Amino acid sequence: MRGMGSDNVWGADNQQERLSIGWVVGFVDGEGCFSCPIYRCDVMTLGWQVRPEFAVVQGASSKDVLEDLQRFFGCGRVFRNRRHDNHREDLFRYCVQRYGDLRDVVVPFFQEYPLKTSKRYNFERFVQVVELMSLRRHLSVEGIIEIAEIAQTMNHRKPSELLRILRDHTPALSQSGEDEMVRPLRRRREAGGNDQPRLI
Amino acid sequence: MRGMGSDNVWGADNQQERLSIGWVVGFVDGEGCFSCPIYRCDVMTLGWQVRPEFAVVQGASSKDVLEDLQRFFGCGRVFRNRRHDNHREDLFRYCVQRYGDLRDVVVPFFQEYPLKTSKRYNFERFVQVVELMSLRRHLSVEGIIEIAEIAQTMNHRKPSELLRILRDHTPALSQSGEDEMVRPLRRRREAGGNDQPRLI
Repeated sequence: MRGMGSDNVWGADNQQERLSIGWVVGFVDGEGCFSCPIYRCDVMTLGWQVRPEFAVVQGASSKDVLEDLQRFFGCGRVFRNRRHDNHREDLFRYCVQRYGDLRDVVVPFFQEYPLKTSKRYNFERFVQVVELMSLRRHLSVEGIIEIAEIAQTMNHRKPSELLRILRDHTPALSQSGEDEMVRPLRRRREAGGNDQPRLI
Repeated sequence: MRGMGSDNVWGADNQQERLSIGWVVGFVDGEGCFSCPIYRCDVMTLGWQVRPEFAVVQGASSKDVLEDLQRFFGCGRVFRNRRHDNHREDLFRYCVQRYGDLRDVVVPFFQEYPLKTSKRYNFERFVQVVELMSLRRHLSVEGIIEIAEIAQTMNHRKPSELLRILRDHTPALSQSGEDEMVRPLRRRREAGGNDQPRLI
């Protein structure tokens, strides 16, 4: 990311379309999405992975502005979106998923140049999750529960599947029916009762 | 509209939230809509009225940015939108419908500060319609047909009802079944065959 101090010249090289900071903030206020989905993931110790993401979706006819955004931020990628919905053209998606890029580029940018719509509240929750991850809280049971509780308040999301599974499988219930993915979570949760995150 | 020459200080008074030009262009690239619907209207000589409109819709939680836009442009109004769709909150709509405001404020602004997404092509057609109206072409049969042909290429619109009615009621067909609203149009169309607009 270049030219942070100016609203005039940003991102791309001379030959490329340049975006102003104001335009990027306005466009993301309209079309951007900050989300923190939590996926089941066998290779993670807890069986769940937090994957915060910043994304902007456009129809194929505006794919070029997504590439401009990619140059502007100097990170992220543009993908063809598998979903077509009712759109008459293919959808494309600029997204930043790499944790270091979110922490070092995307979050500082929107902290310096705040969103103006109610999307800023979503962004604030997104920052909370990114900060918890920088403390490695996503690797502990309490931490990932804290993250899931924040994430389910974002983007009118459905209640977190992780939280639902934890609630459904209370210690009073038989362990035999417990979801395999939740078992490592429960073991760690039951092993200690303090509020401190335990790094795994 | 104030402060046209600067990207820093715009629109609102000191106490109010200020919007930058860049933010407005980016936000309208994301959320704005330029449309030229043509409505049946008994009080118009032709029985049809062209009503170009610039609009931005947001959920209730972002109503304040619509009011900021209203202050920024110094025209237009914010309405509660009757449609709720699947949204969980009321929708609000900032829209500029007054022809003089579109011609003197909205069109010059986006000509000076162009949109970056494919929405700019829509805007170009919108400008064509506004210019045809400044020539009072919307008051002639040929003019309103020309406008309808432009309008139906905008916003993935359904084919124009006005054009459909004109096509369905060719001179070869019985006049008796003709739509009442189209009769004045046909009379004028059949009265002359040249391509010059006739101001009514």
